[in-house]
Amino acid sequence: MQKSSRVSEAVIRRLPKYYRYLKDMQKSGVERISSKELSKKMGLTASQIRQDFNCFGGFGQQGYGYHVSELCDEIRKILGLDKEYNVIIAGAGNLGQALANYVGFEKEGFNIRAMFDVNPRLVGLSIRGVQILDIDSMGDYIVNNEIQVGIVCVPKAKAQEVTDEMVKRGIKSIWNFAPVDVEIPENVAVENVHLSDTLYTLSYKMNED
Amino acid sequence: MQKSSRVSEAVIRRLPKYYRYLKDMQKSGVERISSKELSKKMGLTASQIRQDFNCFGGFGQQGYGYHVSELCDEIRKILGLDKEYNVIIAGAGNLGQALANYVGFEKEGFNIRAMFDVNPRLVGLSIRGVQILDIDSMGDYIVNNEIQVGIVCVPKAKAQEVTDEMVKRGIKSIWNFAPVDVEIPENVAVENVHLSDTLYTLSYKMNED
Repeated sequence: MQKSSRVSEAVIRRLPKYYRYLKDMQKSGVERISSKELSKKMGLTASQIRQDFNCFGGFGQQGYGYHVSELCDEIRKILGLDKEYNVIIAGAGNLGQALANYVGFEKEGFNIRAMFDVNPRLVGLSIRGVQILDIDSMGDYIVNNEIQVGIVCVPKAKAQEVTDEMVKRGIKSIWNFAPVDVEIPENVAVENVHLSDTLYTLSYKMNED
Repeated sequence: MQKSSRVSEAVIRRLPKYYRYLKDMQKSGVERISSKELSKKMGLTASQIRQDFNCFGGFGQQGYGYHVSELCDEIRKILGLDKEYNVIIAGAGNLGQALANYVGFEKEGFNIRAMFDVNPRLVGLSIRGVQILDIDSMGDYIVNNEIQVGIVCVPKAKAQEVTDEMVKRGIKSIWNFAPVDVEIPENVAVENVHLSDTLYTLSYKMNED
């Protein structure tokens, strides 16, 4: 499927959710689904779903609906999850270790090659076979191992410095968990994950009415 | 400030971001800011910002802009961060421990009272003074300690069961990190955090063009 020149941020943010739901249905053996059923499951309108998919040339057939595993595969490709990536994690604290322990990322092609930390008590240890190395060796490691994705799990005060080093050494994608928006050049992709944002949204919702 | 009857999900999701930026500015001693400057900082349009704030009765004065600490305080109140909450964490693995270790939540009134796990090697330990208790005691603990917020950090297969128990014992807010959307009754608030969604968005972005 060909995607149109510029897909809106809102559509892009819904793609992983479609992928999640479709993967679950595929696992449960669901072969096809109408946009109406899919919309009910996902809490979106059927026309919203059709519009979203039209950004990528449209899927599905009138009167048949969507073929679940075909649609799932298409969205996997659109998301770039049909490829393999070399990943490192900077910061081997609890959060870094939690991410290293999660096998789900590997299943989608994100292979964590190494972790890096300043703490001498952590350096030398392994998490699920992933070695924790000295943060000073990170730059050379990136270059020598063709690392494409850098996960930032260091404290807020160190996040920009670590990001700058990653970018300088050729990393093109930053997944940042430090509670600050890191700045990157235009040709680098970044996702700043602010865990507290969802807590505050929850707080708003519980105080509503 | 009085909020209008129903604020859109998109506005609600931007509030924590406003709060984050304003808090940082307040800390740096910034006293006032125009909507134009604020928009530049945040990557939103000035009219978007004015529209968002109008949902809550509007802030700021023509020709003066926004008084940073007043606006920050107003948004804190709107988000319900001027109150104190009793919180528990179900699941004391890496992610649960990472959340327990993060002091930022406490600063906003989310006080983690206890953690719960099935693993006998974890039960009895403490993380930053927060005890890990047996998961079987969670229900009674919720009732006896007026717990309002439940954080779910258990594996996917146990997430719904743990959520059901929390809700049954009176918890009104679920912050779920298991990679599945948990189902809750209408009078309960939930935020399902899917870490992998942001990774997949990043993957899309790095493959764009």
